[in-house]
Amino acid sequence: MNVFVIGIGLIGGSFVKDVKAKLSDAKVFGIDAKPKHLEEALSLKIIDHGATYDDLSKADFVFVSIPVNEMVKELPRILDAVNDDCVVCDAGFTKELICKTLANHAKRRNFLACHPIAGTEFSDSSAAINGLYEGKTNIICEVENTAFKLQEKALEIFQLLGMRIRYMNPNAHDKHIAYVSHLSHISSFMLGKTVIEKEKNERDIFDMAGSGFESTVRLAKSSPAMWAPIFEQNKENVLETLNEYIQNLMDFRELLLVDDFEGIYNEMNNTNKIKSILKGIPINKK
Amino acid sequence: MNVFVIGIGLIGGSFVKDVKAKLSDAKVFGIDAKPKHLEEALSLKIIDHGATYDDLSKADFVFVSIPVNEMVKELPRILDAVNDDCVVCDAGFTKELICKTLANHAKRRNFLACHPIAGTEFSDSSAAINGLYEGKTNIICEVENTAFKLQEKALEIFQLLGMRIRYMNPNAHDKHIAYVSHLSHISSFMLGKTVIEKEKNERDIFDMAGSGFESTVRLAKSSPAMWAPIFEQNKENVLETLNEYIQNLMDFRELLLVDDFEGIYNEMNNTNKIKSILKGIPINKK
Repeated sequence: MNVFVIGIGLIGGSFVKDVKAKLSDAKVFGIDAKPKHLEEALSLKIIDHGATYDDLSKADFVFVSIPVNEMVKELPRILDAVNDDCVVCDAGFTKELICKTLANHAKRRNFLACHPIAGTEFSDSSAAINGLYEGKTNIICEVENTAFKLQEKALEIFQLLGMRIRYMNPNAHDKHIAYVSHLSHISSFMLGKTVIEKEKNERDIFDMAGSGFESTVRLAKSSPAMWAPIFEQNKENVLETLNEYIQNLMDFRELLLVDDFEGIYNEMNNTNKIKSILKGIPINKK
Repeated sequence: MNVFVIGIGLIGGSFVKDVKAKLSDAKVFGIDAKPKHLEEALSLKIIDHGATYDDLSKADFVFVSIPVNEMVKELPRILDAVNDDCVVCDAGFTKELICKTLANHAKRRNFLACHPIAGTEFSDSSAAINGLYEGKTNIICEVENTAFKLQEKALEIFQLLGMRIRYMNPNAHDKHIAYVSHLSHISSFMLGKTVIEKEKNERDIFDMAGSGFESTVRLAKSSPAMWAPIFEQNKENVLETLNEYIQNLMDFRELLLVDDFEGIYNEMNNTNKIKSILKGIPINKK
């Protein structure tokens, strides 16, 4: 089986690492806009061969893991290049614009819209790890628009990697993911910014930072090249979550201002139930 | 050496666990307002004996780890009860009000104001672990107000546990810790709240949460009984950080509203330097 990965960073690199480990007959081809990335992936043995779009006609399975702004430009070209029995899966963090872009493509049936929810704050292929997808949720959108045989082919590989599958429409995906992923990134980036601005004048401040701070700003290490296009494509949903978040922070500030510490206690106590909610989330830490 | 711990949760429990492991002649006595906590600590062998304030006269070293509102009530009583050669260290997350409260106490020289910056989001003695303080920063305030011999006694124990010592005045401590600790807790609690409110209607949302969300809301599991008094005692500093944080979020929202995605890229890129800053922070994860 010829497996192609387009965009060889953490997401794509970890995917094909597992494919190579679990699918003995897989030959893995890598395509990346940056020759340096290809060289690195070859030297790390993440891929077997470097390739270009001209080679896509021999692909059986294509996994596309590039920033979502590139996704809407490249996916139509990738679909143009593959053969009728090939399934193309994306790993985009947004789904609505991608699905809309491909809605009328002649090879829409060869495309399976996916969002495997996995990753760390690192983005290079050198950060790729085995088992990243084990137990993780993979959201599949508009499954009915993909040829049945090609769905099956993709699902076999996803199951091999240990993924849990959930079906959702692109609109619901983008709305919910804004809450549980995109907003976390903004809160983390702005927390990092607030503290760094302070640090300009106060050099000692980070000596005082404990693991709680590290955990809360972890996502502020994420790649701007990946995240700016996500916020652009999911602008309306992200704005909604951000409005609610800012409002909750202003309400908390109001409780502080009027010395309502019982109210503050209750706010925190009510949110403590996040403990039981989080128990179900599988964690990958570097 | 008779070592007393008052308040046997994660902070106090982990402290005496290491003391017992590293100081062969230490007898560890525990005092806790809740009999259940004492029983648990005894059964977990975190302490050797249960005790009361009446026993404090035989203490050589007292470690006080109770919520900061209790701290200002109990520390004067504890100092009243100890002998002249005993050193009392607190582990309060705020320092200004505590130091002010004890400023004119007859046994002020027996008190060493400390903030060992360590912990997890858990607060029970069952969460106590060995090595929690290894490599962690312990902020000591107003060291000049503690008898020199008693400073030495405390430092020997802190060094045995592997702590790094930093000296700071209480005012600077409370100001800086608001940025690197207290604000992280608010941002995390309010993020949890924002998402939980959404979840009322959307049961599937947490299936989509990945490790990034888990990391960002980890602190929202923290104990309200511990944190409401911290926000009360450090109100002015916390308000300052919260104002700056809300302003940064509103600026980010404005960039989104006017489609300035280059500006958003730059915001994130500038904050990425948190990577190098965080490298110096020692992490404890459960």
